[in-house]
Amino acid sequence: MQHKRSIVQTLLAVLLLLTVFGHPAAGRTVRTVKWKLAETWPSTLTPLASPPAQVAKMVKEMSGGKFIIRVEGKEKHKAPLAVLDMVKGGQYQMGHSSSYYWKGKDINTVFFTTLPFGMTTAEQYAWFYYGDGMQYMQQVYDRFKVLCYPGGNTGVQMGGWFKKEINSLDDLKGLKMRIPGLAGEVFARLGVNVTNIPAGELYTSLDRGTIDALEWVGPGMDMKMGFHKVAPYYYTGWHEPASEMQFLINKRAYKKLSPEFQAMLQTAMKAAAADMYYENFAASADAWDKMKADYPDIKVKTFPGPVLKAMKKATDEVLAGYAAANPLFQELLASQRAFMDKARQWTIISDYNYLKTSMELEQ
Amino acid sequence: MQHKRSIVQTLLAVLLLLTVFGHPAAGRTVRTVKWKLAETWPSTLTPLASPPAQVAKMVKEMSGGKFIIRVEGKEKHKAPLAVLDMVKGGQYQMGHSSSYYWKGKDINTVFFTTLPFGMTTAEQYAWFYYGDGMQYMQQVYDRFKVLCYPGGNTGVQMGGWFKKEINSLDDLKGLKMRIPGLAGEVFARLGVNVTNIPAGELYTSLDRGTIDALEWVGPGMDMKMGFHKVAPYYYTGWHEPASEMQFLINKRAYKKLSPEFQAMLQTAMKAAAADMYYENFAASADAWDKMKADYPDIKVKTFPGPVLKAMKKATDEVLAGYAAANPLFQELLASQRAFMDKARQWTIISDYNYLKTSMELEQ
Repeated sequence: MQHKRSIVQTLLAVLLLLTVFGHPAAGRTVRTVKWKLAETWPSTLTPLASPPAQVAKMVKEMSGGKFIIRVEGKEKHKAPLAVLDMVKGGQYQMGHSSSYYWKGKDINTVFFTTLPFGMTTAEQYAWFYYGDGMQYMQQVYDRFKVLCYPGGNTGVQMGGWFKKEINSLDDLKGLKMRIPGLAGEVFARLGVNVTNIPAGELYTSLDRGTIDALEWVGPGMDMKMGFHKVAPYYYTGWHEPASEMQFLINKRAYKKLSPEFQAMLQTAMKAAAADMYYENFAASADAWDKMKADYPDIKVKTFPGPVLKAMKKATDEVLAGYAAANPLFQELLASQRAFMDKARQWTIISDYNYLKTSMELEQ
Repeated sequence: MQHKRSIVQTLLAVLLLLTVFGHPAAGRTVRTVKWKLAETWPSTLTPLASPPAQVAKMVKEMSGGKFIIRVEGKEKHKAPLAVLDMVKGGQYQMGHSSSYYWKGKDINTVFFTTLPFGMTTAEQYAWFYYGDGMQYMQQVYDRFKVLCYPGGNTGVQMGGWFKKEINSLDDLKGLKMRIPGLAGEVFARLGVNVTNIPAGELYTSLDRGTIDALEWVGPGMDMKMGFHKVAPYYYTGWHEPASEMQFLINKRAYKKLSPEFQAMLQTAMKAAAADMYYENFAASADAWDKMKADYPDIKVKTFPGPVLKAMKKATDEVLAGYAAANPLFQELLASQRAFMDKARQWTIISDYNYLKTSMELEQ
């Protein structure tokens, strides 16, 4: 009897250990992780708000509900331009925004959104993933103690809505325009009175003449704002050829994730970033088609050659000014330019040439 | 003593149950899933071989080594053009190939690779994910009992290597050329003697004059084959503007996966597909740059207008022929054409116009 008792006790002890530390076949104990993500956009503003929503959905499904990311739009946190600070500070484990909004904190952040007369979407993704892009982006964001990843691309943005036609550089002098970022600095050099106005006040400002022109995104997003009703001239793009959004992740929070959850997040971010480009492309194609049918009076224009030439010169001057004052800016500019010079040759012989051929055949 | 024994026994029984069926906090028991994937390519042939390798790596990491996909290249299974059959039959749970290889089984598979004078990469992904593309693709692949997903894109492929210059339609008559798919049918209509030759014999065939011309992919992949050493004329593309690869999955195998593993697979496929386009773009840009520096004698040409016009007419005839005989072909052609007509307008005003503006500024 004593013998039997000790067998029972040994068995009991083994089972207890197995239960507490998990059955080998059951894998490790997976604790539910709950994160919050702050995005710069209202949570309904697709396609910009799509990548965070998709990442949340994908990691939830992949983890069987064990990795939950609650996405909070601008309507909730009320601090669209504090997303980087909130992720850095740990109030949010994750953020979704656009890099050039942090230009005031570090001018080198602009390279990861887009540059005026810069790379196309394919060129830029090639630079990120198969050039120096990702490495430089992390180097810049290391000072904020956040990890940074591509988070979706708009493709070529339109040059904006103008109440009057721009026939020469003179027409830009004294023009009141809402345009942010480096493009705003370029316009300022050409005599434009550049202002920044919150999104919610843009339509009224344009309608009432507080501003004469503004730049937003492209037809997919612009038409919803109604700008076409108050400004008949719609100019093609030069200033944001491939604006990339970014996912931001608090480093300490990321380190606490299991390798599996880290891998899920990485894969989901990459898939969601790619998808935003397709979504925005499709939405822009739809909106463009609808615009041409419903508003045939909208005048689609490309800035005249001399105006574009002056914009290019002003862009080079603005960039050279920052490069002279900031060695990393100079290094990053050189990296992007070298990559773009090479990549553009291939873009021209492949995409551009194909489109040109196809257009000529339609004539 | 009797009392104590029964408590011990009850405790033992409870612990036994917990151990066998898993601790609630440990989640369900995750059994290791081992799959095999057959790809049409040699496993070293990047970028075509990259998406399967990436998917295998990603699902392994995300599942903590519980979902393993062993990728087998052509060098292993020796049956590159039997990938669809092997996935359908269940010898492999998964495959990676290009849809137009199954043109002999069902002509409607061609739409999911590319069409001559068809959509660009962005246009095609927009059609897949935000148009009818995915739905049609699954409809066509349902008869093979496999699931089908986008698996990577090459972008615009080059028109091929020619030993002599093509100045007119007469130069095509009697020309011996290796070119597969619908483009081969188009060339055949123009009097070209179209043949198919295995990849391993292409260089020798071109060198010895068994063929006068061939089409492969683009500079990133072509330069490795050495064609530039034996054929000086390199023509720009018209026939495969955005060739998409495909992942194939055996339906029964997929249904046996847990929802978590299904979600991991979906996310990984989407991320890996997007990445192949970036990888091939970067490789093509590099190879193009190197080609121009190392082989300045290569003559890069675009087919003359009348030749392109005849190619376009022949393409329309080939497509009309299939459409007349096959109602689904007609429906799919109408879907792609309607989407492309709309999308192309946006491509022209955004990408094309931007590239044109940038090129003019360089002059």
